[in-house]
Order: sequence, then structure tokens, then C-alpha cells
Amino acid sequence: MIWRLNQGPVRTARGRGRLKVQELWPGLPEWLPLPAGRLIPAIIQDAASGMVLMLVDLNQEALALIAATGRVHYYQPAKRKVVAKGEASGHFQDVVEIRLSCGGDQVILKVRPAGGACELGYASCFFRRLGEGGWEIADPKVFDPEAVYPEIAFSH
Amino acid sequence: MIWRLNQGPVRTARGRGRLKVQELWPGLPEWLPLPAGRLIPAIIQDAASGMVLMLVDLNQEALALIAATGRVHYYQPAKRKVVAKGEASGHFQDVVEIRLSCGGDQVILKVRPAGGACELGYASCFFRRLGEGGWEIADPKVFDPEAVYPEIAFSH
Repeated sequence: MIWRLNQGPVRTARGRGRLKVQELWPGLPEWLPLPAGRLIPAIIQDAASGMVLMLVDLNQEALALIAATGRVHYYQPAKRKVVAKGEASGHFQDVVEIRLSCGGDQVILKVRPAGGACELGYASCFFRRLGEGGWEIADPKVFDPEAVYPEIAFSH
Repeated sequence: MIWRLNQGPVRTARGRGRLKVQELWPGLPEWLPLPAGRLIPAIIQDAASGMVLMLVDLNQEALALIAATGRVHYYQPAKRKVVAKGEASGHFQDVVEIRLSCGGDQVILKVRPAGGACELGYASCFFRRLGEGGWEIADPKVFDPEAVYPEIAFSH
């Protein structure tokens, strides 16, 4: 279990009172030491509403960037690189809490999103619900994807 | 995108008014046709509280069992087989809604759990939160794992 790998020295900040969450991120790569090339799935959840927004993979570089910026970064397989969520749309996601699974191999990033998470214009990528006719759109659009992502040709 | 693969015939039930969610499950393997051996990640979320409980993988067999029973089943890599959530603990999870990601390759199962999801005694497997000293336990136990899982030797 990854969480057992590092029971390292107590941070010197202990005793100064409770840290703000932003002050914790620099410790993230230390507390979740990922081997190079290894991915860990991260559920991105709206901290206020509890809505699940995305399911992405993190690698070492993404963890370091989350720690450095306080914002969601993830490994995008199609681009074969780490991207900042919001780098094209401005819909950044500020991380306010990080949870680890019992197995130490999955995380939840609870976030404050600056806008819809889905490139198709929805708050969440999980906007389709199984209905009697198959997958139906269950949520309203929260932005116009053609205005936000002009470089993408939409067929939807 | 998987959801595009099956825009098949409208279910004959259409026109009888809105179906109960239980009546939809038999259509699940039809609406999410997984090739043999392929896994799709499923976020298990408490339908009432929004709490994320688990992140598991589904295969063809798990989808068929969810459809047949209305309860969460998933592929457990350690056992190399599909298990019913709750088969050892009695903490079954009744599925009340199924969501599909924009890419058609991830799902959310919103559930009514009959008890804690985590074998360590917690409602959610994500009971650890990053704090100043590393991963700290953020949630209360909701059951005694030694009483519920007597066959497992706990060192926690």
C-alpha cells in the first residue's frame, strides 16, 4: 500500500496550528510516491455539490504540478502528456482536499471548478444517464463548447 | 464511443410512461456492449449523500449480473473473478442510477448501500485525507470489520 511507504518525519509545521490546505500540496509527491511511468486513477469531485466531474489518471509529473499550483493536472493519453485542466477553457479546478483509497492506489481530488468540466459543455463528463431508450442527456449545458473550444469541430 | 455503438430499437416499454429504474437494468449489457475481457471503470457513489464509496472495474459478466440483480457486482483482480459487493458482509449496494462518461468508457453507479463499503469498517474506501502529517483518517468507522469479516486477519 502506497500510503504505508512514507510514514516519514512529521512536518515541521505541526504545532503551529492547523495548516491551510494549500500549504499541504507541496507534500503530495512525498506522501504519494509514484514510480516513474506509473499511473494512479483520480476521481475529480466538486467539493461543494459532491458531483463527480471526471475520472482521470495522474503520474509523477501531474502530482508535482498539482502540488506546485494547487490545481488539477492529469495525464492525457491522447496527447501523451500531462495537461492542466482548464488550460484551453479557463475552467481550472482548485484542489481543496485529497483522499486516498484503502488500497493506496486510487485518489479523489475534491475541487472548486471555475467552469464546466466536460468539453461538450456540461458541468460533469457523466451527463448521460441510462433511460428507457438507452443513454439520455440528464444534465443542462453550462457553457457553449464552440465558444470555449473554438479549435475543436463539434458534431454533437 | 461505446454509447454510439447501440442506438438500437426503442424499447417497447416506451409509451407506457416512465419506467422504474429496476426495469432498465436488463438493457444494460445491450446499451454498454463490452468486448469479452474488456474492463470499464465504475465509480460507486452513494445516491443520497453523494459520497464516493469505491472505484472498481466491470466486465461483461459484472454488467450482466448488475442487470439481472440490480446490485453492484465487479471484477476483483485479486480473486480473478466477479464478486457481488456485500457477498461476505451483507453490505449489498442497490443500483438506482447509471451514468456514462462523455468518452463512453467510464461509468458511475449511484447506489443505496446496505452498509459500509470498505472492508476496514468505513462507509467509503476513501477515508484517508491528506493532512499535515500525511494521510490521516478523516471518517468515523461505521461497522466493526472483525465482526463482519471474521475470515480476514486485521492488522489495522
